[in-house]
Amino acid sequence: MSKMKVLFHVNQKESWDTALGNMINLIKDVGEDAVDIVVVANGPSVMAFIEQDLLGMMNELADKGAVFEVCRNSLKKMCFGPDACISEASLPSFVKVIPAGITEIIKKQAEGYAYVKP
Amino acid sequence: MSKMKVLFHVNQKESWDTALGNMINLIKDVGEDAVDIVVVANGPSVMAFIEQDLLGMMNELADKGAVFEVCRNSLKKMCFGPDACISEASLPSFVKVIPAGITEIIKKQAEGYAYVKP
Amino acid sequence: MSKMKVLFHVNQKESWDTALGNMINLIKDVGEDAVDIVVVANGPSVMAFIEQDLLGMMNELADKGAVFEVCRNSLKKMCFGPDACISEASLPSFVKVIPAGITEIIKKQAEGYAYVKP
Repeated sequence: MSKMKVLFHVNQKESWDTALGNMINLIKDVGEDAVDIVVVANGPSVMAFIEQDLLGMMNELADKGAVFEVCRNSLKKMCFGPDACISEASLPSFVKVIPAGITEIIKKQAEGYAYVKP
Repeated sequence: MSKMKVLFHVNQKESWDTALGNMINLIKDVGEDAVDIVVVANGPSVMAFIEQDLLGMMNELADKGAVFEVCRNSLKKMCFGPDACISEASLPSFVKVIPAGITEIIKKQAEGYAYVKP
Repeated sequence: MSKMKVLFHVNQKESWDTALGNMINLIKDVGEDAVDIVVVANGPSVMAFIEQDLLGMMNELADKGAVFEVCRNSLKKMCFGPDACISEASLPSFVKVIPAGITEIIKKQAEGYAYVKP
């Protein structure tokens, strides 16, 4: 069988636990070499990348091949004050910034990725 | 590249802000001529069409080619009293009523539309 | 036209009402012979199978051909005490247990099923 392909769309902070649990179960079930996993984070979900709670689990999944993409539009909107937005430099190294998460979500489905909204 | 195609599935009132924001970002990113946008509204989300808050933004997106479709089954269920349901005549002119939102969601994916649940 | 195919992804208990309503509307709209319906339940949504509220409606939909699949990983996590998890024997007979819901969701989309997150 050809490699499985899946895109996880995470747009709320509360969805990360489910999303990461799904990814762990998926890799356990089929093996990391059998599946291409892309995560597109937009909206308030991007806050998770500057907090500590989930970075360890994300890093492990990235080591197993999961690609974490974050929407630049969303980063720009996540500010706690005029000079306190999320800077791209503050993101963990396994995160890839993309211009627009929504465009990526559409393109990936056109490339045959299944869509999952945890 | 062929034109991008996307279906936004909006079934909760709280999802409109995200959905409309996604659509604005998408058009900004790829241009309104590069993408076919269809919105299928069912469930409580249909209430937004008889309130004022978001109609201006929706109208602008409709002017850029986004198609707003609303589920007739859902309209019939949205009543505030025995004689106070949403009448189709009260809907803004850019909204198209379809018999069953769920059927449209399935058909559009079969036609190659990406699915996005904001 | 070829038969329509749709996968409903239900991962929260609160989503069942919407999901079952969607399925009823769909069958009313196109007829039970025109559509293959698969429901994949994972996460807390699996609790619905050991409660009474919705089993009657689910059973009717199963009689019309809807296939209810439940994730074994999720069953194992739904425990109310050390010896009080959901046992597979306690599930209604129309429910099929699958090893990993997430894998099924990806496979079904690769087979042409539309994805719906109620």
